[in-house]
Amino acid sequence: MKRVTRRQILGPVGLAAGSCVLSSCFNKNVAPSSGKGKKAVFPWPYAELDPDVTAKRTYYDCEKGKCMYGVFAPVMSRLAEEHGDPYRSFPVGMMRYGVGGAGGSGSLCGALNGGAALIGLFAKSEDDMKGLIRGLFLWYEQAELPAYVPEKPILDVEVPRSVSGSVLCHVSLTRWCETSGSKAFSKPREERCKRLAADTAKKTVEILNAYFTGESLSVAELSEDVRRCRSCHAKGSEISNSSGYMNCGSCHSSLAKDHP
Amino acid sequence: MKRVTRRQILGPVGLAAGSCVLSSCFNKNVAPSSGKGKKAVFPWPYAELDPDVTAKRTYYDCEKGKCMYGVFAPVMSRLAEEHGDPYRSFPVGMMRYGVGGAGGSGSLCGALNGGAALIGLFAKSEDDMKGLIRGLFLWYEQAELPAYVPEKPILDVEVPRSVSGSVLCHVSLTRWCETSGSKAFSKPREERCKRLAADTAKKTVEILNAYFTGESLSVAELSEDVRRCRSCHAKGSEISNSSGYMNCGSCHSSLAKDHP
Repeated sequence: MKRVTRRQILGPVGLAAGSCVLSSCFNKNVAPSSGKGKKAVFPWPYAELDPDVTAKRTYYDCEKGKCMYGVFAPVMSRLAEEHGDPYRSFPVGMMRYGVGGAGGSGSLCGALNGGAALIGLFAKSEDDMKGLIRGLFLWYEQAELPAYVPEKPILDVEVPRSVSGSVLCHVSLTRWCETSGSKAFSKPREERCKRLAADTAKKTVEILNAYFTGESLSVAELSEDVRRCRSCHAKGSEISNSSGYMNCGSCHSSLAKDHP
Repeated sequence: MKRVTRRQILGPVGLAAGSCVLSSCFNKNVAPSSGKGKKAVFPWPYAELDPDVTAKRTYYDCEKGKCMYGVFAPVMSRLAEEHGDPYRSFPVGMMRYGVGGAGGSGSLCGALNGGAALIGLFAKSEDDMKGLIRGLFLWYEQAELPAYVPEKPILDVEVPRSVSGSVLCHVSLTRWCETSGSKAFSKPREERCKRLAADTAKKTVEILNAYFTGESLSVAELSEDVRRCRSCHAKGSEISNSSGYMNCGSCHSSLAKDHP
């Protein structure tokens, strides 16, 4: 019987990026004029942003609309400052829905949902979009977060780092609670999520910058454990009853005796 | 030792709605004119839509952009047909990112992500938004889906129903594969997801219609098992190390011996 343990530490971040992800050609950084009543051009043009400035804006924007809003809004506002429409017209307030894993459900981390939404808005093909989101999500699963330390903290406390092992809000949050000893609805946990969102916004912008400039960027890859699971369950495998690449070990901690 | 089993059948759908969710006052169904360079009004006004027409549009729109797009786009296009901007200006193509649980990751079901995004765009407060999303998500976890049967099927096959027990794409999909005997990347599975998205769009519109008209709507509630878990782990409890209301039993199938 093989076991995949719940607390397993995953492989290191920083492996070389697949060329399929980050070698796409550069898109002209010109915002389209959105004529009255004219259907918007899609995908929207992207202009290179400063990852650190974005992180800082995200940290404070989380005060206005929490994690998904915090990641999405600063990118729109920065592009709107430079180019006006269509960025200015985007109803960024809607992104508040991502809070707490979408409406507080605990599913997909809102910071990641915001990052993925940005990638969806700018990526030039479905394959590119999937590749960029995959880089973001695997980084989040495997990195020690939060790494962002604000110059002027909203809550001036030491925030321990943890490895989420999951893209899910509930798992990410509970693992951090275990590491820090803080409660799920405490002020330090809120501070942690603002800093985590800042990290996620920074990584999203780094990924988008690299995608549009063609520069290389090291991205996370699937762990050896997940690869093993996928050899039987993923696309093209014998059983092929599973879709996705979330870390299996965060839920499948105890497999049946007859599992190979 | 108490156990929460992975395959547990959940409580019935259709309990009376909490008044907090559906008793909000009606919003005038007037679309704002989006002046050039003028920041959009938020939240956007909602106008009552036909749930069955929406479901049908969703089913076919999934061909263009998959599940999240399929749920989100028909609502925007129907409102744009009636009111033009701002609905017409929304870059609906971005919603393709929700495919396969966000970029193919297997996390939050894209149909639900699309429904939640719509709720985020129209709900008048954070509390309302959370309540409406909760009604949608719990319905999805507990209902036998897909229920939608197209008049002119894209793939004319019998599509078995299953109870996902989860808002996650991976879990929902794998359970359906177990029920149907189909593979995860088969044509019948694609057909299932289009019909499931149609169901989700219909439910989203029913929820939004009820919210804005003040009509009553029966909504799903937390199962007894989840309530029991939450009594120790959720907000205000003794341990309070968990956020969210996803069905616990879909992952926590085997609890430690010392669990009370």
